Amino acid sequence: MLMKLIVKKFGGSSVANAERVANVARIITDSYKAGNNVVVVVSAQGDTTDDLIAKAKEINPHASKREMDVLLSSGEQISMSLLAMAIEKMGYPVVSLTGWQAGFVTDSAHGIARIRRVETERIAAELARKNIVIVAGFQGINRYDDITTLGRGGSDTSAVAIAASLKADLCQIYTDVDGVYTADPRLVKNAVKLDEITFDEMLELASLGAQVLNNRSVEMAKKYNVEMEVLSSMEDKPGTIVKEVVKMEKMLVRGAARDNNVARISLVALPDRPGIAFRIFSLLASKKINVDIILQSIGRDGTKDISFTVAEDNGEEAVAVLREHLESLGGKDVLCDTNISKISVVGSGMQSNPGVAAKMFEALSDANINIQMISTSEIKISVLIDKADSERALNVVHDAFIPTAK
Amino acid sequence: MLMKLIVKKFGGSSVANAERVANVARIITDSYKAGNNVVVVVSAQGDTTDDLIAKAKEINPHASKREMDVLLSSGEQISMSLLAMAIEKMGYPVVSLTGWQAGFVTDSAHGIARIRRVETERIAAELARKNIVIVAGFQGINRYDDITTLGRGGSDTSAVAIAASLKADLCQIYTDVDGVYTADPRLVKNAVKLDEITFDEMLELASLGAQVLNNRSVEMAKKYNVEMEVLSSMEDKPGTIVKEVVKMEKMLVRGAARDNNVARISLVALPDRPGIAFRIFSLLASKKINVDIILQSIGRDGTKDISFTVAEDNGEEAVAVLREHLESLGGKDVLCDTNISKISVVGSGMQSNPGVAAKMFEALSDANINIQMISTSEIKISVLIDKADSERALNVVHDAFIPTAK
Repeated sequence: MLMKLIVKKFGGSSVANAERVANVARIITDSYKAGNNVVVVVSAQGDTTDDLIAKAKEINPHASKREMDVLLSSGEQISMSLLAMAIEKMGYPVVSLTGWQAGFVTDSAHGIARIRRVETERIAAELARKNIVIVAGFQGINRYDDITTLGRGGSDTSAVAIAASLKADLCQIYTDVDGVYTADPRLVKNAVKLDEITFDEMLELASLGAQVLNNRSVEMAKKYNVEMEVLSSMEDKPGTIVKEVVKMEKMLVRGAARDNNVARISLVALPDRPGIAFRIFSLLASKKINVDIILQSIGRDGTKDISFTVAEDNGEEAVAVLREHLESLGGKDVLCDTNISKISVVGSGMQSNPGVAAKMFEALSDANINIQMISTSEIKISVLIDKADSERALNVVHDAFIPTAK
Repeated sequence: MLMKLIVKKFGGSSVANAERVANVARIITDSYKAGNNVVVVVSAQGDTTDDLIAKAKEINPHASKREMDVLLSSGEQISMSLLAMAIEKMGYPVVSLTGWQAGFVTDSAHGIARIRRVETERIAAELARKNIVIVAGFQGINRYDDITTLGRGGSDTSAVAIAASLKADLCQIYTDVDGVYTADPRLVKNAVKLDEITFDEMLELASLGAQVLNNRSVEMAKKYNVEMEVLSSMEDKPGTIVKEVVKMEKMLVRGAARDNNVARISLVALPDRPGIAFRIFSLLASKKINVDIILQSIGRDGTKDISFTVAEDNGEEAVAVLREHLESLGGKDVLCDTNISKISVVGSGMQSNPGVAAKMFEALSDANINIQMISTSEIKISVLIDKADSERALNVVHDAFIPTAK
């Protein structure tokens, strides 16, 4: 048997208490027993990070990000050592390493640091000694030897970065779901688990709110071509493989998603002059507000309307900045509608298949659901609809594309 | 005014909650405002270390010392960042450093590591930037970049090591008492606080159970001649200075102490042959049992008795090892008495004053307290007495030497 190098990542809920730590230790040692080299990336236990944040807020609600990183990075130091102890108890050789010990070098953006490189000498030496290596996720150090953190969900990125640096055969992300589904199973009765999905599809689904994997980690996995698997730490069965190219299985669409965190902003009766759109979106960019779907229409009176969507949390700020400049833009009013929802289908198969959009609109039309805006990319079609219709819309769109019996 | 470099150490109870952290932050910033360079060594908050140990025991009661060190060192990482945040809130420049960031290099004896050196470049650079520097006590790294801890009370040693390496003007140890007393004030009504005490006296008092300072830290302070001050973090008043030579103040005796953790072992009717004592104490040394007072007496029948004291916890093991070899030693029996107490007086003044012992014995005699064994050193006289008499003995001995009105 060929020896494989496998990186496994366990999130905070997977190691929340002694029993779960023991369960994770069993998963790790099973893989080690099977002859694999195993590197494990672990997050802070359960609510540790939130508890530490609460402690900090009590003392100083405006603490520096540098000191917050020092504080929060202790969370993984606790979970990684406890996990190592559980593996020691089972009689296997193991060593735990903090971010700096494991060689994570990041930039200096405390709280949202980016990994620059992983200096893998220490990890490689420990693997050569036949140790199982437990590494603290979410953390590293900058060039000044200051502790940094990668931000929420950063442990996924840590795992992919190690897998890329060590040229691992597989990077397994253990979560509380057993894989990636064609839709959120809590919303869609007929949702089915996917065996495989491409990086691009995963990125689109993640940005649409599937929230199984952190987007930065998938981007990095795509860049370095690291094969990932999303699987459950509670059930012993295969999950969903995420990779560059997958078998098509006659599936045009890989999944459907709903996003309720949407606000539609409309600028009404703008003069039909060049440069107006540029000015609007420059204003929003200066406030770091991301814009999603954009729609422009010419009215019969020689004016135009521009509508676009932003995350609901950004709605107020977007309206405020546009109101401030409304006069110079020459518009009449700024409207904001948060009573909407975005329904999307994602799949590499639709690139070469013009019938996908038609099929989606037909399904919505049959269900008597009105489409307010449409946006398409090579592997995604999104529509805006009334929020009240969103769960029904997700189901009819999903069922139009995904065979119910797999 | 000459700028001073001051190292301040705060124990776990001084930073146990947000309110106390704020109090400590005020002490630190007051010193900084007064124009001093300030380096602070901090222990883990309150019961953090015990909580972490409990977490570990739940998962693996026999965890490796390496992983225990990884786990426990997170405690100071939490307290140091919280303290830094409290200082930030007051508007002062501050930076917190872990053991490895602060340059603590130790040997590899996990859990009881010894500091080899402090590489002070980073601390010096932060002081040059006018930062208050908060350093994690109790921890360092070994030559392999593995995290080590110095064992309980190690933060005192961390503070003295930094003070020695930086050639600090003073090393202040903040505790929950306001200084070193002539005796434990909970036992001796007339105990008074000392303004000054020598390193040697402090070492004798600490080993006698005064427990104000960790002994290793005082040994290191003596070796590198670091002036220390023991003072309260709750009250704003001078404490007790510990240094090489102090004004004598006509005090022959600096303090009196009681030690109830004593067992007396007696070997009865040994043959009067050379080498017997050597064999007995070699056996005990091989079990790492420290022996304190030794008394040997020749009996009238040509045999001899040897008695000695050990810490009460070691009593059973000492008896067991001696019973095992009793036949080859030629003795009749091994006896163990734990119903005893050791009363000591300590003071550099007694070196040149032969009357001290007589005065001590007189005080005990007047109180009708029987002396069972006597041991003397240059700056200490100890006697063994019945445990039932110990509190009364401590008071009469103390009051014989220490002026009640100071």
